[in-house]
Amino acid sequence: MTPGVLGDRFALYDLFAAYGALIDASDFDAWLDLFAESCTYHIVPLENYERGLPAGLVFCDSRAVLEDRIGALREANKYNIHTDRHLIGLPRVVGDAAKETLVEAPFAVYQTDQEGETRLFGTGLYRDRIVSEAGILKFRDKLVLLDTFAVPSLLSTPL
Amino acid sequence: MTPGVLGDRFALYDLFAAYGALIDASDFDAWLDLFAESCTYHIVPLENYERGLPAGLVFCDSRAVLEDRIGALREANKYNIHTDRHLIGLPRVVGDAAKETLVEAPFAVYQTDQEGETRLFGTGLYRDRIVSEAGILKFRDKLVLLDTFAVPSLLSTPL
Amino acid sequence: MTPGVLGDRFALYDLFAAYGALIDASDFDAWLDLFAESCTYHIVPLENYERGLPAGLVFCDSRAVLEDRIGALREANKYNIHTDRHLIGLPRVVGDAAKETLVEAPFAVYQTDQEGETRLFGTGLYRDRIVSEAGILKFRDKLVLLDTFAVPSLLSTPL
Repeated sequence: MTPGVLGDRFALYDLFAAYGALIDASDFDAWLDLFAESCTYHIVPLENYERGLPAGLVFCDSRAVLEDRIGALREANKYNIHTDRHLIGLPRVVGDAAKETLVEAPFAVYQTDQEGETRLFGTGLYRDRIVSEAGILKFRDKLVLLDTFAVPSLLSTPL
Repeated sequence: MTPGVLGDRFALYDLFAAYGALIDASDFDAWLDLFAESCTYHIVPLENYERGLPAGLVFCDSRAVLEDRIGALREANKYNIHTDRHLIGLPRVVGDAAKETLVEAPFAVYQTDQEGETRLFGTGLYRDRIVSEAGILKFRDKLVLLDTFAVPSLLSTPL
Repeated sequence: MTPGVLGDRFALYDLFAAYGALIDASDFDAWLDLFAESCTYHIVPLENYERGLPAGLVFCDSRAVLEDRIGALREANKYNIHTDRHLIGLPRVVGDAAKETLVEAPFAVYQTDQEGETRLFGTGLYRDRIVSEAGILKFRDKLVLLDTFAVPSLLSTPL
């Protein structure tokens, strides 16, 4: 099957399942644990990414910045109360090496507002570098390529 | 990997795939076969569940009640003709013991009406206790936590 | 687990993940490689299929016709610029024999237009015959059963 990091493919599936579930449960401490000690987290419109434009919507180039960001989102969420729901497609290994793996997975995020109405928030593609730390798969570089770039309340939640 | 009930992870994935597919195919006899001899089936708005409120939208506390309910839905569907389509994310094992397993999976349900238009019906999270009966995985307690609570035609189909 | 063609279930999951991903990436050459030497590709409204009506929206009865069709779509896409995003549920083996396997998977397709707005395009069910060619799983007969039959720009992309 897949050599390199991905000895256990179910562990990869579980990593993505946990990623979406922990955002949806607002369990951001456990969510941060899915990232490697040294990590990045970027949200970039797909269009910009394909044109090589660096402009991103969220740009966390270290774990400290990501933790800081999550703290800010928690504050923001007090004023934009909603429920997220992630649907993530089957992860697809697009490159594998001895030390890291490039994995893609499509996603859709839905939000439910306080009136109980659910809407599609946006769709996109995760394009992530994954490493093994002490035998546990972690996101080292999480790249969220967002199809949707005309969203009203973009930054109130991680994607 | 996972001890306990889930010796075969693919069997778990198949259980969830069959669950959605059989509703979408209106094959409710086969769908009922996915439940254990002794089982429950509840649909509860996520908001109520998180606040500890017992009020549910559907409350089947035994297999007999569930079978009765399904019979009623078949009648109701004659007057609300539509096609369901379930998209279910990767199931995530959140607890496993020798005799039962707690598994969560996010879902989105779409409905297509007689004019051929497809709309999002709602999203949510399955939070299920799964047991093994004669070596086959079955739902013992199916809990459908529904993000959407402002839906017009809620009870015309199982979720 | 599953006998017959599907010795490796992950290979089946990967086939479906690649199917959606390669359309979304507009990599139609690699997408065509997912089909067997001798193959068919049909898009049929679910309603017609269930009534035994042969009328399909896309009808490619050979690999040559499919390749021709893809060439035409590439031209059409120049005038209907958009991004596709496929979300495909867990594939479900509904029949398996020594030489071919019948597999179903639900899907939702989203499209993002040039203004950056993402909408549900449609949902449906893949119902595919899969074969092994030189040890690699391929689609021999791809049947796209489309729930949605009232879509405006149906033929600008494969589903």
